[in-house]
Amino acid sequence: MPLDAADRPKTSFKQVGTRPLRPDGIDKVTGRARFGADANAPGMLIGKILRSPHAHARIRKIDASKALALPGVKAVVTKDDFAPRDDDLADVLVNVMARDKALYHGHAVAAVAATSVQVARKALALIAVDYEVLPHVTDVDEAMKPNAPVIRDGLITKGVDPALTKASNVAERYEFGHGDVKAGFAQAEVVVEREFKTEATHQGYIEPHACLANVGSDGTGELWVCTQGHYMVRDNCARLLGMDLSKLRVTASEIGGGFGGKTTVFIEPVALALSRKAGRPVKLVMTRDEVFLATGPTSSTSMMVKIGAKKDGTIAAAEALFKYQGGAFPGSPAQFGAMTAFACYDLKNVKVIAYDVLCNRPKQAAYRAPGAPMAAFAVESVMAELGAKLGLDPIDFRRRNAAKQGTKAVYGPTFGPIGFVETLDAVKNHPNYKKPLSKNQGRGIASGFWFNFGGQTCVSLNIGTDGTVNLALGTPDIGGSRASMAMMAAEELGIPYDQVRAVVTDTSSLGYNDVTDGSRVTFAAGAATIHAARDAVRKLCARAARTWGIPEDAVVWENGHAKPAGANAGNHKPLSLKEISGSAGSTGGPIAGHHEFNAENAGPSFATHVVDVEVDPETGRTTVLRYLIAQDAGKAVHPSYVEGQFQGGAAQGVGWALNEEYVYGKDGRLQNAGFLDYRIPVASDMPMIDTIILEVPNPGHPYGVRGVGETSIVPPLAAVANAVSDAVGVRLSSVPYSPPKVLKALNGRMKAAAE
Amino acid sequence: MPLDAADRPKTSFKQVGTRPLRPDGIDKVTGRARFGADANAPGMLIGKILRSPHAHARIRKIDASKALALPGVKAVVTKDDFAPRDDDLADVLVNVMARDKALYHGHAVAAVAATSVQVARKALALIAVDYEVLPHVTDVDEAMKPNAPVIRDGLITKGVDPALTKASNVAERYEFGHGDVKAGFAQAEVVVEREFKTEATHQGYIEPHACLANVGSDGTGELWVCTQGHYMVRDNCARLLGMDLSKLRVTASEIGGGFGGKTTVFIEPVALALSRKAGRPVKLVMTRDEVFLATGPTSSTSMMVKIGAKKDGTIAAAEALFKYQGGAFPGSPAQFGAMTAFACYDLKNVKVIAYDVLCNRPKQAAYRAPGAPMAAFAVESVMAELGAKLGLDPIDFRRRNAAKQGTKAVYGPTFGPIGFVETLDAVKNHPNYKKPLSKNQGRGIASGFWFNFGGQTCVSLNIGTDGTVNLALGTPDIGGSRASMAMMAAEELGIPYDQVRAVVTDTSSLGYNDVTDGSRVTFAAGAATIHAARDAVRKLCARAARTWGIPEDAVVWENGHAKPAGANAGNHKPLSLKEISGSAGSTGGPIAGHHEFNAENAGPSFATHVVDVEVDPETGRTTVLRYLIAQDAGKAVHPSYVEGQFQGGAAQGVGWALNEEYVYGKDGRLQNAGFLDYRIPVASDMPMIDTIILEVPNPGHPYGVRGVGETSIVPPLAAVANAVSDAVGVRLSSVPYSPPKVLKALNGRMKAAAE
Repeated sequence: MPLDAADRPKTSFKQVGTRPLRPDGIDKVTGRARFGADANAPGMLIGKILRSPHAHARIRKIDASKALALPGVKAVVTKDDFAPRDDDLADVLVNVMARDKALYHGHAVAAVAATSVQVARKALALIAVDYEVLPHVTDVDEAMKPNAPVIRDGLITKGVDPALTKASNVAERYEFGHGDVKAGFAQAEVVVEREFKTEATHQGYIEPHACLANVGSDGTGELWVCTQGHYMVRDNCARLLGMDLSKLRVTASEIGGGFGGKTTVFIEPVALALSRKAGRPVKLVMTRDEVFLATGPTSSTSMMVKIGAKKDGTIAAAEALFKYQGGAFPGSPAQFGAMTAFACYDLKNVKVIAYDVLCNRPKQAAYRAPGAPMAAFAVESVMAELGAKLGLDPIDFRRRNAAKQGTKAVYGPTFGPIGFVETLDAVKNHPNYKKPLSKNQGRGIASGFWFNFGGQTCVSLNIGTDGTVNLALGTPDIGGSRASMAMMAAEELGIPYDQVRAVVTDTSSLGYNDVTDGSRVTFAAGAATIHAARDAVRKLCARAARTWGIPEDAVVWENGHAKPAGANAGNHKPLSLKEISGSAGSTGGPIAGHHEFNAENAGPSFATHVVDVEVDPETGRTTVLRYLIAQDAGKAVHPSYVEGQFQGGAAQGVGWALNEEYVYGKDGRLQNAGFLDYRIPVASDMPMIDTIILEVPNPGHPYGVRGVGETSIVPPLAAVANAVSDAVGVRLSSVPYSPPKVLKALNGRMKAAAE
Repeated sequence: MPLDAADRPKTSFKQVGTRPLRPDGIDKVTGRARFGADANAPGMLIGKILRSPHAHARIRKIDASKALALPGVKAVVTKDDFAPRDDDLADVLVNVMARDKALYHGHAVAAVAATSVQVARKALALIAVDYEVLPHVTDVDEAMKPNAPVIRDGLITKGVDPALTKASNVAERYEFGHGDVKAGFAQAEVVVEREFKTEATHQGYIEPHACLANVGSDGTGELWVCTQGHYMVRDNCARLLGMDLSKLRVTASEIGGGFGGKTTVFIEPVALALSRKAGRPVKLVMTRDEVFLATGPTSSTSMMVKIGAKKDGTIAAAEALFKYQGGAFPGSPAQFGAMTAFACYDLKNVKVIAYDVLCNRPKQAAYRAPGAPMAAFAVESVMAELGAKLGLDPIDFRRRNAAKQGTKAVYGPTFGPIGFVETLDAVKNHPNYKKPLSKNQGRGIASGFWFNFGGQTCVSLNIGTDGTVNLALGTPDIGGSRASMAMMAAEELGIPYDQVRAVVTDTSSLGYNDVTDGSRVTFAAGAATIHAARDAVRKLCARAARTWGIPEDAVVWENGHAKPAGANAGNHKPLSLKEISGSAGSTGGPIAGHHEFNAENAGPSFATHVVDVEVDPETGRTTVLRYLIAQDAGKAVHPSYVEGQFQGGAAQGVGWALNEEYVYGKDGRLQNAGFLDYRIPVASDMPMIDTIILEVPNPGHPYGVRGVGETSIVPPLAAVANAVSDAVGVRLSSVPYSPPKVLKALNGRMKAAAE
């Protein structure tokens, strides 16, 4: 059901669709913006965390007495400062602070608060941890073998035989699909089946995790923190520390990137526990290597995909097997990989099985469309190979099988209006698609899907006596949402954009908001903003009615003015928002609008990417020549931000496709915990990315908005792989397509050709 | 009209009237509470203000070139950084930064921002100001003389002959009253007429003014500030700096006392202007001598009061003439003095004239019941003398003439239900009133009145999934309002007090709130809290109705639970607030309550004080032996805070009565700008003050609340004066009754007796 069943999405706009300046731009380029590490408090201590050097080890004993004796050390915390739990936060707690075992290289085992960073570092070195090193496993396939070391005692796989009693590293088995896959493959005339692996990649946000915690002896606390969701931080930390939610006030700093990686807690409960114990404020800032070691990269995977088609290009059957490792904890996005894998296609017979697997690695965290890019890498690689075997244009092949309104998706629901076909047509008609290619150059095509989410959201809108407006949001702005919300408020109120200032307020000042994730904010907080503005408009009209002495329903709102309307309204000069708010004190007091809801009906978003590359046969290095994205935004509120989301996702996907990977040694230790050895794309690696914004309105939003932030990272892995294959005929079974791997494949092929 | 005409004030309470722990107590005693000077920002500069050494001087030129050349100096501002204005902020601006003239000793003339306080101080010394010293006047009677130096060019007295064209130091003339005073005095059988003066006193708050300003080049700003009203600070500063209200986000720190003195801006616009100019955050903290020199003390006054009575004790007529100086700017509380002077009494014939007069002194600021204590000093001194002449007990004399429901007040309105008579009866029945007195001991009685205000107020209430509640307030907590609001919210919601946490939020997160003054907050924000809680209760009931599948009006709220009620409700187990909020995500999203309004119908409050003193005839020093207060609170939400307000007001009044005064030299310079030479009472100066809380419900509040913070400072000046007179027969024409003045009077009387 749409948000307002009586309304179709609005289609005519004055503000929405324009490109005003971003409100945080100057702050960020001048250094005025305050990030996680930019807060201080009188009497503040510095917190530091001691981390396991072992991938897997029993912790026999922790002796902090020497550290505590060091002058300037005010508190040491270990697992004993947190009560063990058996609820949904059990794993969060174990990840925050190791209990009986260190489960990965970098796992927190103790923390100190001291008067300086130097003293804190010295204190860490004085904490004696007695480890019993255990066998470890870091590869997902190895972890599923019967003889693999079992990481979590007593972990019984969910989703299989309920009588199962043997512990393993498989946390859960998922199955999705419909139709008869076996019968389908029997009808297929061409079948391609391939295996793939992907390595873990990190979200690569510039700003390390940082917070300032302050807990009083009365049990109340404050936290300043860089996060995608300060209500999530509040709820998790309050529960881990045994506080009432209302007693912990969390303020979100500006955020230097998140991409899903800041949707959980790592250091925050530790900082709060240190502060509570020391009775002083504690600042905790991760170093870069801590970010790599101990925050969530995405899963590494091992995958099989098999697709069979008739000669006319109709897919007869598709199946897949996905193994996602999520670190030493359940909760990898295996499920999302399985759900999204074939979502672009209208399939009669499809089956996907996925496993959530544990390894001795850091607990994975969400990374932009979590789980989807790996699955799309596998599926869209096979689609490319299958299309080529069928002799079909890759766009035509996808178009023939494309999901559309009425398609039953592999994960269950039937799609409403969606814009996938539009993305295929748009790229096919774009000049990039016809550009000739030279030697060692190739073109790759891939499509992608993301659900998009809604979620719980609260917005308040307050009008000042000068007619300017403050919009209080509870969703940290990671992609320009303050601008988009201000535009939507301005659109509804009929005032200029620059008269609305949106701020992200703290958890005590506004009701609960879900994390900024799932591409939910422009959709859900946007809808809440629109409804809050409409609530304010109702009150503005009521004030005008009172001023004129006419019934409230005889006033309408047009172009920022209350106007009398209808037979009983009489003749009155329209009153502007500024006029009504300027006299609000004498007509009843301040004017505000509010909206609290759980947003449903987020519209899914589809994209198709076309990438042209050139591969240097001497070095194996791949250069991206051109990149084209067509994606359905439903309605682009601020097109520049939408384009930025398209481009940012693609850039991250290109990094994942070509260079990024977690490298583990045989000792289970991470070998490249830093940007020198873990290579993310820089500006010179990328061409200007061309974008096409398509607008197939989402009927579940008053303006037709769909989320746009995640779909764009889904196609690039496959698109790049398909382009390299097109350029030099090399198809690897794994990303990254890094120069050594590509060169090795090229040399292998040359060697084979020479033999 | 009451807030809800259908409701009588609630009379039965579970939480209201109890004495829970104050939520800010531990923070304040442990030093965790953050006051105005406790905020810092990266790259912060220190601001300092250069002040006039002259009481009155033309500023010919300011040369800041040497200061600007000093390494570390990042900005200098003078009047040229603010555009002159001719609106209601014209005087605020002139006080913030002198324009053509320095109007008082300590008037700001320039300011610097530098990298350290040392550099800033050095820079101040390098700013060359070319002054032309002008004749000055600091005494209110002198200032009204025809030959007095005219302080503000072109100031024409309001409230007199509109054809008046001659500038003077009289800003405005007020007149109040009714009946025929001449005829009344003709009927009087005993008349007392006396003249009085009072000196300026300072609010004496412990925390000097302090703020941290941060203005970006995009025109947005943030301000952390110690104030009684951060919305007032926002509105004044934004207008003075030409910013949209929505672009300046102001956060109120904890406050180390205000008492009215933090209801305007002094340093805040200067800090913002420095920050804007320097492009960096600027912290500005006043020194103690700056607080005395340049923030608002209260007015000094010169007064005449004449009261005539019949022998039976009925007052036949009363008149008064009040001159209040408010510093070098219009706006003294002369009007309030005139309005409150006779408000305790039901008078047939009464007339009050008051003048608002300028002197070369700092602009006065509100001080607890502004204007009323001086007027009461005069009126209640005359009442004591008149009662004694009539041979009447002072309580009986006041009771015979006491204002009650239906009395037409001197300032216009007719009183509704009030509790003045109750205060008289209560003290008369108290044991203190019968305690015998020894030699040199005396008892003084005086009564007092304050209007109490309502004003614009916004409150939001958000319920967490654990059933605990955040209450977002916009009224800085100067007297325990967070506790009182939490109690009222808990009362309405039916949950324990400690499950509600009230916070004072910033100006961008909640709608406009008037300043915390006029004893308005427990009344107005309390009513808003109650209405916001009722809004939330409506939503809680609706969620229960949805859960049960019954109509919303078939659900009632009782003892923190939704219960089915009525014929169509069916049989359902009641749902607690925690249960309903715990599942809010699946029943529609977060649950909140909001209320925005302009509170009217604040109930006035009356008090009667009885003080016993002993005067040392050797030194003239007065010791307070006992102090008794009876005051009408309407309904005491948190009785300990109410008693604290009673006691605090009395203690400040005793200081004013006995010791405090601004001492000016002939050069117009303040001679005692510090707590060593300006003596406020300390704990050892005061006995434990006995209090009687009376509760005559205010029909304009859902719980019957009246403001209590100000009335308590109104009677002490007269009560102490009457007690000293009773003890040693000395009646001074002015406060303070300081030891030298009392001793001089005692010696004069002895000398006269000896002659």
